[in-house]
Amino acid sequence: MASCEIITIGSELLDGRVLNTNARYLAREASRIGLTVTHQSACRDDEQAMMAALREAMNRSRVIFVTGGLGSTPDDLTRSVIARFFGCGLKQDKRQYQHIVRYFKALKRRVLPMTREETYLPENAKPLLNRWGIALGFYIATKNRLMIVLPGVPREMVAMFEHQIPELIHSLVKLGPKRIELVAKIAGIYETQVMKLLGPSFFRGRNFDFGIYPELGEVTIRIKADTLSLTRSLRRDMAKALGQHLYSFEDDSFAQVIGDILVHKKQTMAVAESCTGGFLSQLLTEPPGASRYFQGSLVAYQNEIKNRLAEVPMQTITKKGAVSREVARALAISARVQFRASYGVSITGIAGPGGGSVQKPVGLVYIAIADKNESRVFPYRFMGDRSKIRQRSAWEALYLFWRVLKKSSVHF
Amino acid sequence: MASCEIITIGSELLDGRVLNTNARYLAREASRIGLTVTHQSACRDDEQAMMAALREAMNRSRVIFVTGGLGSTPDDLTRSVIARFFGCGLKQDKRQYQHIVRYFKALKRRVLPMTREETYLPENAKPLLNRWGIALGFYIATKNRLMIVLPGVPREMVAMFEHQIPELIHSLVKLGPKRIELVAKIAGIYETQVMKLLGPSFFRGRNFDFGIYPELGEVTIRIKADTLSLTRSLRRDMAKALGQHLYSFEDDSFAQVIGDILVHKKQTMAVAESCTGGFLSQLLTEPPGASRYFQGSLVAYQNEIKNRLAEVPMQTITKKGAVSREVARALAISARVQFRASYGVSITGIAGPGGGSVQKPVGLVYIAIADKNESRVFPYRFMGDRSKIRQRSAWEALYLFWRVLKKSSVHF
Repeated sequence: MASCEIITIGSELLDGRVLNTNARYLAREASRIGLTVTHQSACRDDEQAMMAALREAMNRSRVIFVTGGLGSTPDDLTRSVIARFFGCGLKQDKRQYQHIVRYFKALKRRVLPMTREETYLPENAKPLLNRWGIALGFYIATKNRLMIVLPGVPREMVAMFEHQIPELIHSLVKLGPKRIELVAKIAGIYETQVMKLLGPSFFRGRNFDFGIYPELGEVTIRIKADTLSLTRSLRRDMAKALGQHLYSFEDDSFAQVIGDILVHKKQTMAVAESCTGGFLSQLLTEPPGASRYFQGSLVAYQNEIKNRLAEVPMQTITKKGAVSREVARALAISARVQFRASYGVSITGIAGPGGGSVQKPVGLVYIAIADKNESRVFPYRFMGDRSKIRQRSAWEALYLFWRVLKKSSVHF
Repeated sequence: MASCEIITIGSELLDGRVLNTNARYLAREASRIGLTVTHQSACRDDEQAMMAALREAMNRSRVIFVTGGLGSTPDDLTRSVIARFFGCGLKQDKRQYQHIVRYFKALKRRVLPMTREETYLPENAKPLLNRWGIALGFYIATKNRLMIVLPGVPREMVAMFEHQIPELIHSLVKLGPKRIELVAKIAGIYETQVMKLLGPSFFRGRNFDFGIYPELGEVTIRIKADTLSLTRSLRRDMAKALGQHLYSFEDDSFAQVIGDILVHKKQTMAVAESCTGGFLSQLLTEPPGASRYFQGSLVAYQNEIKNRLAEVPMQTITKKGAVSREVARALAISARVQFRASYGVSITGIAGPGGGSVQKPVGLVYIAIADKNESRVFPYRFMGDRSKIRQRSAWEALYLFWRVLKKSSVHF
């Protein structure tokens, strides 16, 4: 197996001003290609620190990625330090320079001398053209080392990687056999509950890589296994154990899966939400083509709006409270009727930090779903801060609605 | 200055399955305390790799953070490897154990033998209680090294850090003088435009740390300087150069700043949005107390809804198109009137990937703002994918609305 190491350069990474998304991107893509990522480090804009990092990497890794520090401000040292590391000078890449000249011409601007520096590469390197920005990338291939140097701007780095790097690695590095990936997307339960449902027997007596990742409102399992038959039996076991919580074996979003069911059934939906303030609607309209199933939403943030625009009787609101079973139900029915949809989904709750009481604490949320025959209300008590309560409410509404869609009944 | 190093443990970090938010959090907080973060590395769940990382760290850094690998599954090696590194055994912490027993009792569950392992620490270590989860943290203080070991679950790690770590470091480590931090939050322009407005003279002849960070829809500048007088003049120069784009010198959210102005003026707002599907409403209701200024929103995703619920004449929609100046204006006015708000803000556009044409390409977006006297429409052509176009539209609407609020007129 070919080992791989990632060095991200920039002081902003070391003091935490910036989240290191480049390291994650490179690690994931390198793993997908078939490299084994064994080291990752962040290095500040400092010649000595960079030299030490390069030395360690060259001692131990087959493929070395370096990103960042290719700009033209004084703290950008990467290209000159790498040239010095290999004991050589710098040369200009004419094609990158012409690209920049054309680019600036279109903007009716002159190329500054400073900018010209970004088209240089070490004499022992080959260029990696950057058509998405200014700074040239490059790579240095020796008999058993490949160093790939890319700009730190995530957009440019990703575009350059996609277009040039997999091919480059395949042509220069001997890779091990590719492992089979299996993804499972789960909603409505937390990571620990997923582990409990799978149980120890899931892991006993078979060998595979297992990763479980809680994300916003959902849990993703990623597995790598060596044989197709093992993948199949893992898939079967997960389906059995996680049943009503497993919504996809693809890298789909939950809204996409829900949208596909609605389109398939030729049905539509509408939303009335209060404490989530538009969050549920936003999730549901993320997939392209959402207009095929999503009618619209009323964000009824004030009682007066719940009464006048969603037609919830003011008596219900004053007697039961805006956060109540009754108001949740009335909102779901109103969403369905007013937006002329097959289903209405509503959320009303107390996201906090203010507005809670002993009877109705922060985190109390009612979610309701109505179809043409009936309606049902689901009470919740979510934990966490305002932002967490809003997120969990919206995701739980997605989950409940997905279950309703699968059973074709609001009672399940 | 006391140097600091961060080691994050877990194979899921090395192959990119998970974004390393812990490293960023620790780096930022350590810098705030006054430590200088010089190294960051990710290490896989492997004894040899961990030993090498610990050895390097102990050779060079005053404070060493280690996170991850404290659970009780077979790949969790951190506590035993650290004990072996220091040549000692493990001991149980009674208080953490009692905490877990109580916790499981409340859940009516038994403590498994496996779980008990999570309450152990190396014999030369002192405990860091974890009241937010199961795994005990710990620290090892020698004459000139401090190693702090925390669980990898971000929620637990952050809570434990906040409650125990700054005090611990202050009591054991001699810190250098604290630098003064200056934050500037900017909206309505990109990073490159910010740099152009500041110009080279902003940087000439004075010494300070400068970081510029484009985030979702806004740009943040973070500066560290040694003297209060330098901070003051930097602040004055930024205000002058960035004028109508600089919305705060605090770590406020844009919605919070807008909400504060509305509350101060005793005014309210409402929204009608189409392609953004609830995004703008969600941003506006993020701050606590949003109900003081936010009335509600209509997400009018279908033409029929724009007509029937937002009262946009069907003739306008068919003649001018749903994405047009006229419909944007009608939606803003309707939001203001129907929700009985001081201001109505609307967005209608083509987020793609489908639905574009030569006359009306993907990315065409109209944003309108109405007050009681008048209304104004702002046309845009945003670049990027569906998600980018939705984000930019919502953020640009916030920016336009903020400018209207500052001028108290929709014409500026």
